Amino acid sequence: MNNPEFDYAARRAALSERMDAKGIDLMFLPPSADLEYLTGMHRRVPAFGNVGYPHHWVAGGLFAPGQEPVFVLPRMITEFDLPDGVVGEVVTVNETDDGAAVVGSVLGRFGVVGTLAMGNRSWAQSVIELSALCSPSSVVAAEPVINPLRRIKSAAELDLMTAACQLVDSVMANIEKKVVPGITELELASEVSYQMSAAGSRTDSFDTAVWSMGPLDDRDATIRVSTQPLRAGMGVSFDFGAVVGGYCSDFGRTVHVGDPGAEYRRVYDLVMAAQQSGIEAVRPGVTAAEVHAATRRVIVDGGYGDHFRHRTGHCIGLDVHELPYISEEDNTPLEEGMTFTIEPSVFWPGRVGVRVEDVIVCTADGGRKLNEHPTTMVIGG
Amino acid sequence: MNNPEFDYAARRAALSERMDAKGIDLMFLPPSADLEYLTGMHRRVPAFGNVGYPHHWVAGGLFAPGQEPVFVLPRMITEFDLPDGVVGEVVTVNETDDGAAVVGSVLGRFGVVGTLAMGNRSWAQSVIELSALCSPSSVVAAEPVINPLRRIKSAAELDLMTAACQLVDSVMANIEKKVVPGITELELASEVSYQMSAAGSRTDSFDTAVWSMGPLDDRDATIRVSTQPLRAGMGVSFDFGAVVGGYCSDFGRTVHVGDPGAEYRRVYDLVMAAQQSGIEAVRPGVTAAEVHAATRRVIVDGGYGDHFRHRTGHCIGLDVHELPYISEEDNTPLEEGMTFTIEPSVFWPGRVGVRVEDVIVCTADGGRKLNEHPTTMVIGG
Repeated sequence: MNNPEFDYAARRAALSERMDAKGIDLMFLPPSADLEYLTGMHRRVPAFGNVGYPHHWVAGGLFAPGQEPVFVLPRMITEFDLPDGVVGEVVTVNETDDGAAVVGSVLGRFGVVGTLAMGNRSWAQSVIELSALCSPSSVVAAEPVINPLRRIKSAAELDLMTAACQLVDSVMANIEKKVVPGITELELASEVSYQMSAAGSRTDSFDTAVWSMGPLDDRDATIRVSTQPLRAGMGVSFDFGAVVGGYCSDFGRTVHVGDPGAEYRRVYDLVMAAQQSGIEAVRPGVTAAEVHAATRRVIVDGGYGDHFRHRTGHCIGLDVHELPYISEEDNTPLEEGMTFTIEPSVFWPGRVGVRVEDVIVCTADGGRKLNEHPTTMVIGG
Repeated sequence: MNNPEFDYAARRAALSERMDAKGIDLMFLPPSADLEYLTGMHRRVPAFGNVGYPHHWVAGGLFAPGQEPVFVLPRMITEFDLPDGVVGEVVTVNETDDGAAVVGSVLGRFGVVGTLAMGNRSWAQSVIELSALCSPSSVVAAEPVINPLRRIKSAAELDLMTAACQLVDSVMANIEKKVVPGITELELASEVSYQMSAAGSRTDSFDTAVWSMGPLDDRDATIRVSTQPLRAGMGVSFDFGAVVGGYCSDFGRTVHVGDPGAEYRRVYDLVMAAQQSGIEAVRPGVTAAEVHAATRRVIVDGGYGDHFRHRTGHCIGLDVHELPYISEEDNTPLEEGMTFTIEPSVFWPGRVGVRVEDVIVCTADGGRKLNEHPTTMVIGG
């Protein structure tokens, strides 16, 4: 469903300008955050095992500078996957159609295609079939054209990001009380997902994770959920996010079951101090890598550098992980209106696991958290 | 984790032969059912909002005829996404590496690449980058090479398919009792997903759906779950599946809340008769389209043809929807060992909604259900 707060035509006009500047004649975007950004067309909830329809490779929108987009969609998608429909022209490909012929006739409207841009995660099959149909002289990735538009969030986008963050805050406040010995990680994860949906999340923004780490076993953060009951003496880490108006949150805390020992307390304080240091480093013009360094330094100085195995964070919006990444290799300068996570952690199997994650917006005055849930230590059970 | 029941080397040898026969020099497969089939490497649970790492386009396995595969993976994947690891050679790309240079040096081992095959759903970005690195004379889709291997299930695969089907049978038996006025669709869907995981499913094979249709409103099957409480006078349709050993089930029933009227009873019987007719049409050599026709005919003859808007089914295995499809356009002859759904439905918004779905295996003697849950009418509440 199109969000009346957003001016999709203006977004497409900005895309059009960038396509012209880069000499791109035609862009194909499959159902994706990019397509939702430009047209309001919702993405389907993803499936673990692939879902596929006849002519599925056609599914997407075609964009040429200065023209209205044309959607080409298999019948099964228009019939069952788009409860809110699509605004714009839709060409439906039926099961018994010749999919390539239908797409070919649509491509005919766009004239000679010198440079074809493909959504970065569109399918190889779509590249192969579209290339055969319009013989572009070059095929390029669409992300460098679209990401600079998406990475700066408008006030209306920030409202949705804030709602997605505060939705998970309220779920965490409820869930904390349930962190007691005997309840399983799966029960907690299921309750988290249920509560997010009940509170209005379109779906989980990614797979909800609840996992125990500590001295009682050598479990690592790679096993994101299990049917194991919680035990006193372990830290229980949470990683989950909601989707509001298409915009994702991504959130984390660790709750200890029973009285924590000295190392957990030390590491907990260190991880929170690292996050604070990262937030304080944020301002326009500072690079993503510098924010990563400011965060990481606290944990390295505290003696746990080998166990901060993660990057510091990533931009976030319609997707969970968007460029730039708050990571060692990313020298992109921050800009006002960028939203990103700062999520330091110490994961030391058999010893201690602590994480924290909030979404930060870069403002003229520095970093501001969109989440409101406290970071003070919580002891469950 | 590799399944000791499976001879991955034999599967790769069969692939190798097919690549040779088709003149394919190199094949790239991203983390996918294809890669799990050939190597045992697990897929991550998918995310609604994209998850992305530096150099993410490199992620996958490279296969050349007669050679062992080489995995190229971003550090974040090897560090956090593969709790069971990978059997074989892994080249890890670190955040600060030059991803293209690392891949280029791996590609050097394979010599001149004339024809490059890409997993059908590998990313456009991977096609673009790999093509730039090895300048293939042609790029082709991998599915026609791999699907003929995957579509015929071995006895060990059928055991896992059966386990995945009977897992959902047992969940449905529990859930039926909870279909009462007042409980919400979301509560039921959440309980279905929880029970599947608690019973050992790796994750939902696709997004669990629970939705009401009937005379009380004009809700269509496109809205797969809502926070609406169940009401007497509506049929509640279920669509869900589990994952056991990587293999997917896909299951459906409709339960009526309160005493159903004459039309619901008539349509219920029609949909069950259609499924039975489809199952009876199954035998080796009969085409997928013929099974579709045998199923559809019953509903058309019963006067509800316009409301059987779905195809009859699809093959299923490591993916939920695999080729061939049990659909009007698919003239593939069935073979012994193929597993597929037969899932007729009548979806008439404001009137009636009924569906049934089971997985069928094609045997020498005809079609046999892998599910055991009955199809007799159930009245809840």
